[in-house]
Amino acid sequence: MSHIKRVRYRTRKHEVGDQPGAIIIPEDALKPIIAVYSYNEKELVTAEGHDLKIILDQFAKCKDHTHWIQIKGLDDIKLMEDIGTYLKINPLVLEDITNTHQRPKFDEYDDYVFSVSRQIYFNEENELCNHQFSTIVKANLIISFEETHGEHFAAVKARLAGSKGAIRTAGPGYMCYALSDTIIDTYFVLLAKIGDELDRIEDRLYTDADKTIMYDTQQLKRTLIILRRITWPERDKINDILRTDNPLVTAEVKMFLHDAYDHCIQVMDLIENYKEITNSIIDLYLSMVSNRMNEIMKVLTIISVIFIPLTFIAGIYGMNFARVDPVTNKQMPDNMPELYSPHGYVYALIGMGILAVIQVIVFWKKGWFTKL
Amino acid sequence: MSHIKRVRYRTRKHEVGDQPGAIIIPEDALKPIIAVYSYNEKELVTAEGHDLKIILDQFAKCKDHTHWIQIKGLDDIKLMEDIGTYLKINPLVLEDITNTHQRPKFDEYDDYVFSVSRQIYFNEENELCNHQFSTIVKANLIISFEETHGEHFAAVKARLAGSKGAIRTAGPGYMCYALSDTIIDTYFVLLAKIGDELDRIEDRLYTDADKTIMYDTQQLKRTLIILRRITWPERDKINDILRTDNPLVTAEVKMFLHDAYDHCIQVMDLIENYKEITNSIIDLYLSMVSNRMNEIMKVLTIISVIFIPLTFIAGIYGMNFARVDPVTNKQMPDNMPELYSPHGYVYALIGMGILAVIQVIVFWKKGWFTKL
Amino acid sequence: MSHIKRVRYRTRKHEVGDQPGAIIIPEDALKPIIAVYSYNEKELVTAEGHDLKIILDQFAKCKDHTHWIQIKGLDDIKLMEDIGTYLKINPLVLEDITNTHQRPKFDEYDDYVFSVSRQIYFNEENELCNHQFSTIVKANLIISFEETHGEHFAAVKARLAGSKGAIRTAGPGYMCYALSDTIIDTYFVLLAKIGDELDRIEDRLYTDADKTIMYDTQQLKRTLIILRRITWPERDKINDILRTDNPLVTAEVKMFLHDAYDHCIQVMDLIENYKEITNSIIDLYLSMVSNRMNEIMKVLTIISVIFIPLTFIAGIYGMNFARVDPVTNKQMPDNMPELYSPHGYVYALIGMGILAVIQVIVFWKKGWFTKL
Amino acid sequence: MSHIKRVRYRTRKHEVGDQPGAIIIPEDALKPIIAVYSYNEKELVTAEGHDLKIILDQFAKCKDHTHWIQIKGLDDIKLMEDIGTYLKINPLVLEDITNTHQRPKFDEYDDYVFSVSRQIYFNEENELCNHQFSTIVKANLIISFEETHGEHFAAVKARLAGSKGAIRTAGPGYMCYALSDTIIDTYFVLLAKIGDELDRIEDRLYTDADKTIMYDTQQLKRTLIILRRITWPERDKINDILRTDNPLVTAEVKMFLHDAYDHCIQVMDLIENYKEITNSIIDLYLSMVSNRMNEIMKVLTIISVIFIPLTFIAGIYGMNFARVDPVTNKQMPDNMPELYSPHGYVYALIGMGILAVIQVIVFWKKGWFTKL
Amino acid sequence: MSHIKRVRYRTRKHEVGDQPGAIIIPEDALKPIIAVYSYNEKELVTAEGHDLKIILDQFAKCKDHTHWIQIKGLDDIKLMEDIGTYLKINPLVLEDITNTHQRPKFDEYDDYVFSVSRQIYFNEENELCNHQFSTIVKANLIISFEETHGEHFAAVKARLAGSKGAIRTAGPGYMCYALSDTIIDTYFVLLAKIGDELDRIEDRLYTDADKTIMYDTQQLKRTLIILRRITWPERDKINDILRTDNPLVTAEVKMFLHDAYDHCIQVMDLIENYKEITNSIIDLYLSMVSNRMNEIMKVLTIISVIFIPLTFIAGIYGMNFARVDPVTNKQMPDNMPELYSPHGYVYALIGMGILAVIQVIVFWKKGWFTKL
Repeated sequence: MSHIKRVRYRTRKHEVGDQPGAIIIPEDALKPIIAVYSYNEKELVTAEGHDLKIILDQFAKCKDHTHWIQIKGLDDIKLMEDIGTYLKINPLVLEDITNTHQRPKFDEYDDYVFSVSRQIYFNEENELCNHQFSTIVKANLIISFEETHGEHFAAVKARLAGSKGAIRTAGPGYMCYALSDTIIDTYFVLLAKIGDELDRIEDRLYTDADKTIMYDTQQLKRTLIILRRITWPERDKINDILRTDNPLVTAEVKMFLHDAYDHCIQVMDLIENYKEITNSIIDLYLSMVSNRMNEIMKVLTIISVIFIPLTFIAGIYGMNFARVDPVTNKQMPDNMPELYSPHGYVYALIGMGILAVIQVIVFWKKGWFTKL
Repeated sequence: MSHIKRVRYRTRKHEVGDQPGAIIIPEDALKPIIAVYSYNEKELVTAEGHDLKIILDQFAKCKDHTHWIQIKGLDDIKLMEDIGTYLKINPLVLEDITNTHQRPKFDEYDDYVFSVSRQIYFNEENELCNHQFSTIVKANLIISFEETHGEHFAAVKARLAGSKGAIRTAGPGYMCYALSDTIIDTYFVLLAKIGDELDRIEDRLYTDADKTIMYDTQQLKRTLIILRRITWPERDKINDILRTDNPLVTAEVKMFLHDAYDHCIQVMDLIENYKEITNSIIDLYLSMVSNRMNEIMKVLTIISVIFIPLTFIAGIYGMNFARVDPVTNKQMPDNMPELYSPHGYVYALIGMGILAVIQVIVFWKKGWFTKL
Repeated sequence: MSHIKRVRYRTRKHEVGDQPGAIIIPEDALKPIIAVYSYNEKELVTAEGHDLKIILDQFAKCKDHTHWIQIKGLDDIKLMEDIGTYLKINPLVLEDITNTHQRPKFDEYDDYVFSVSRQIYFNEENELCNHQFSTIVKANLIISFEETHGEHFAAVKARLAGSKGAIRTAGPGYMCYALSDTIIDTYFVLLAKIGDELDRIEDRLYTDADKTIMYDTQQLKRTLIILRRITWPERDKINDILRTDNPLVTAEVKMFLHDAYDHCIQVMDLIENYKEITNSIIDLYLSMVSNRMNEIMKVLTIISVIFIPLTFIAGIYGMNFARVDPVTNKQMPDNMPELYSPHGYVYALIGMGILAVIQVIVFWKKGWFTKL
Repeated sequence: MSHIKRVRYRTRKHEVGDQPGAIIIPEDALKPIIAVYSYNEKELVTAEGHDLKIILDQFAKCKDHTHWIQIKGLDDIKLMEDIGTYLKINPLVLEDITNTHQRPKFDEYDDYVFSVSRQIYFNEENELCNHQFSTIVKANLIISFEETHGEHFAAVKARLAGSKGAIRTAGPGYMCYALSDTIIDTYFVLLAKIGDELDRIEDRLYTDADKTIMYDTQQLKRTLIILRRITWPERDKINDILRTDNPLVTAEVKMFLHDAYDHCIQVMDLIENYKEITNSIIDLYLSMVSNRMNEIMKVLTIISVIFIPLTFIAGIYGMNFARVDPVTNKQMPDNMPELYSPHGYVYALIGMGILAVIQVIVFWKKGWFTKL
Repeated sequence: MSHIKRVRYRTRKHEVGDQPGAIIIPEDALKPIIAVYSYNEKELVTAEGHDLKIILDQFAKCKDHTHWIQIKGLDDIKLMEDIGTYLKINPLVLEDITNTHQRPKFDEYDDYVFSVSRQIYFNEENELCNHQFSTIVKANLIISFEETHGEHFAAVKARLAGSKGAIRTAGPGYMCYALSDTIIDTYFVLLAKIGDELDRIEDRLYTDADKTIMYDTQQLKRTLIILRRITWPERDKINDILRTDNPLVTAEVKMFLHDAYDHCIQVMDLIENYKEITNSIIDLYLSMVSNRMNEIMKVLTIISVIFIPLTFIAGIYGMNFARVDPVTNKQMPDNMPELYSPHGYVYALIGMGILAVIQVIVFWKKGWFTKL
């Protein structure tokens, strides 16, 4: 039924020797949609648009707010350059945002910090998506960059709108934490799906094992490997943030990040566990294939070994050694006297039956009828 | 007989983007039973109930005592919140107590410490249970949270009642140690059971090896992997406690914890040893399957190779080449003269016999009758 | 089609006990071509030649410039010694330049630094090339040594000519970075090629799997291993440069090197991913071979097991037990009465048909017609 | 012949929740035999007995001596408690002495040090023994505890009696070193035995490989794993002793311990080497099994493929298509005319021979007669 | 042709409990040959002999020289003891020199340093030799101990005689470096030989793969493992020397040792590469064996499956169902009417032919004639 699509790795498309800091838009990038959420303890002001103007307007309108600028889609070099110029972002950072093959990392700059996470999930076509999520955090400002137009942060936005908890008051660092933690939460969703799939495969292993099991298990294993390659640097990233003394990361945010760190470790634990299960499934499957072969060979061997001697005996008595020479009419009583015994046929059948029974007994004794 | 049930991993049920610190009760949680043990050098006062009142009553009654509040079952958000409020516990701690997928850990807070262990054991249905055991230790107070209503600390309670050793005088830290050490002791019980099971499987390997061996061994291996994933952070946890200078962990407790640390290392050692045995069993089993196949093929080949030429010879003498043309009555002496030799049949049988004997000798020389 | 050539490792040719610092030219070395690029913010002066003279002339002509001396080909002991003498380079450095089996490394000397990278790429004949690229950086001077005459730095030269970015102003350290980063960029090209090849192999796995898959995958794996053995010390090398406080490595260059370091990590990540894919392909291939064997055996067994008993029955009725003794004419009604029943043949055929149908049903029930 | 017994792991027998420091005697413990060796530069006084009295007597008699109290057998709770009380030993130490599943370790206490080694050897029944050897070293006193009554330190006693070297003068620390080093020496004996066994197995691999090879190799591997699990903490233990500044460990003793450390490393090296050999033997054995299967299949295939068509031809000419209808006497010359050709039989035999020769040539060309 | 001999590991022959520092000569040790090379900037004086006298004579004669005393062969306890006494060497060092199973190491003593290297090479009989090379370096003196009489340092002696480079002036530390580096150079020779052998094995893999491939590859792998076990401590040893501030190791020597360190790393790199190749060869070989088996099975199955039904049909028409009862002469037209059809034989042959063609087409469609 729901077979997993082949999991592929992508390499970055980058020319050899390109100038560092050059903004190169990926081929299949989408046009950006910009949403600005300006909030303080009292109110939440939102705006949506497609260029720098909407951001600047909001800045002018909400002077006393924290701003979350959510940019979905990266296919706009000019926007990137404008943001870089207006907010004084290093070109190497802008390059990292658009060259969407970064590992999770946390870089500190003079008055802002840059961090990268990865969004890993199965889309509707059951294909594994592996997208980059980058954030720039400045005083009172967080800009997030996503590759797709999909909605991944509905819960965060609901909490923001509902004015729940620290989200309105704890600054852009907390928002950065909230977004990262939401992404780690999706890893649990992914792992739950993988766990269900492994359960299904294991059920199939004992009912209708066919050779797609190997393929499906390998695809799941590959997914786990991708996820593991993400979570290790993700954990290091959180650790880096926990250890920094940058004022953008407050003590309150660190307490929550400690929680996110624990989640990250739990994800890594689950990944290792699931990897062990995939290996166990593969071992069981290969053992089953081997046993299946054994069983096939046993059936072939039992039938062959029982009938080959019997057929040989039948062949013997099918020989045409003549009792009487048709030419000279000489009698030759030594030639196949059994054929001319009144009960030769019956004796032959009985003899064959006894032989067959003996063989069956031998096989029984050897334990070939029990299942290895 | 006592086949091990399939060992499964559970993922936490948590919504993406949920607020940190939200207390979410697991689906299959039980209603809490609260037992309070208040003790000092002289007396032990116990009480049992279902809500905060019983705790507060006991506090009021026993002002000069150390209190162990044992809470079995987590399905009571209100109780959790009451405890959090009354004892001033961080919501993140309460979340960790109810989200029962934590790894063993030790967190220090201002005036209390929080630690998590895992209870791993086979229940009566031979299913592997993996439950969380959390403790909060404050001055003169330890609260333990368990997921099940089962009795795991009978020995500790007996020592407490019998006023044995340091348990009455060494404070809540010692009680925390005693509970943790009891949990580590159950790992030895689990490992003894696994060891026995491995012994049984190995015995079967040489008597009635069937394909459930592979399945059972994989299940044991999976159990070992779960246990290993628990003992590593458990060891780290104990190490963290040994290194802390928190006054809740006295030097006396540390001396005993050093002993628990040694036990933890012994558990890890046994796990590694048993993992090696499972691998060895799997290798031996696969080698046996392979040898079994070899043996089957040898039987088939020996029988086939001996009888195929004999059957061919019988087939030759079963051909109907005519010595006399029935139409023209022309004699054709070149056609199968053997059939008309007076002792042709006997010679043919002798020839077949010699051929068979030669083949048997060849196989003998090749060592096919000895066991590879 | 484009099968990968066998990937080989070369050992250095060096006599046992040779004096350290001896310059030994590799057997297949090429005659050197020297190109000198002298540049400052305003102009770029180039010259080309084959001996030290061209370098000295350029030094005399361009006193205010940074010089990049690109030497392609190493087969000129005199040139090496001249450079060593003129620039006061340690003989051990010169030995390392010509003994082209160095791992990537960074060595600091009094007034110059020496670094080695490796150029790994597939040439036109699809053979893996693994060449050494060494650079000596002094104040205002960088000398690069390559093994081949091929052009690997066209993009850098274009940027130099086009006066793009920091390349003209940031000194020889930046040029050294630019060349190293270009080499790391070629690793991405190599990995993209390997990725495509793995994709092709995986497609073949499901369409026309033949035994070259194993060979091709092993060659790719070997390429990945070579690349991995290069990137680890390459990363360490960059790390060493980042940590040095040598004035030849300016803060500006370090910022860019940090970027190169990230690229190096990405290369290592991709290598690990591709290694996992090769393992997954090998596992899938071996599983397919095993399944193929199973299928072959099933066909053989089904056909054999169905026909062997039928053939035996035919053999029974092909026996010549006589109903009438040709000599005495005695009738023997017990001998094969079936043969003399008016419908014996039809009954026999029907019996055989029923037997065959039963066997087919048995196999069906055993699931042998579905694919394992 | 001398097959190795199955190597088993033992788990400790300890009740869940037992009080720490409780002395629990193992089930199969032996009654203790106490030997006291009191020595100084001039004389050696020995005594033997079964209780504390013999020790106290010796203490009273030899005031100026170093005492080595050798206790073989642990089944005497009273003796343990007496020693604990008299020498002021921590109950946790006494628990560790009788709970004989400790890993090698070195613990320092106020005025004594406690260390554990493991004695690993094959006994006369070729079973692997894994016993605990514990020592307590105080000023002028060393007490050693062994599980068995066997004599393992004859050489040490001979050196003590012969007044050789530092053993008489260098204090109880040196005696502790001498005993530990003797135990490490027995590891070399064990490894020499394993090496010989591996040699024998490898010889068998090329002469009369049977399936016990797999079993024996797995047992040796398991022994190596046990030994490895012992030597790692043993090395750590020696390292701990080398690093301590406890006055009980003098500089002179440390110099010798450095030597013991080297021996320990050599043991670890040998273990790794032998593990590689066991893996190599297993690989070779599995490859041989696979080749053996291949050879069997080739013999079956060659014989079958040659004779199956020949038998078919014989079957063809064994068909009974009638040349003359026995009822109507109609001649049917198209039915099997070959049978009525004067030389049909000879031609048929020649044809069969040619067919067989062609097949043999095809197999020859395919290289089936050479060994894969 | 040049098959590699079985690679064996030797264990030391040492009695359990022997006194530390006891000089024990290995069983197969050779009588020592002593050569003394006394040199300074101006002259080189050599002498040769068999006992301490030759050394003392040379010391007396050459007071202003550096002395290299080369001792080949260790079977002379008295010589060892004399050297120990005269030069005041610790007995543990002398024990290490004669107990030739030391790992490479570097030990510092008051006024001398002791280091061990291992000489690994194939001798003329293609057996792997693994001998110990020990050196003691004092002020103006280096003593080297070798196990064999073979000449391994001809190049060093030539450089010494030719007065080349630093060898005459840089003291005994440089000589120690020169000898060690020469030994590392022989590892390259060994690896080149292994590389050639691997190349040859890989060529055979594609031409005349037989089962010795597995054996030869395993022997090479074992050689690589031995070499790896040597190079790791060798690297550590060099590192120890580089880090020491012992005046016997001058800054000049350290510069050269840095070079030797790089060589050691290159050796380790090559070893890892070659180990990967051996694994790749083993994988390819096993895959080929598996494919070969598949091919054999396909041939057997195709031939069997085609002919089994045909033979059955021939068997059908070889049955003797009677058209006329020989006793009653009753006609039975239902019995095998095909046999009495005028063209029955031809039709039967045509039918068989069609059946065979259909089967060939089915196999073709299944792709059984293409190579998996």
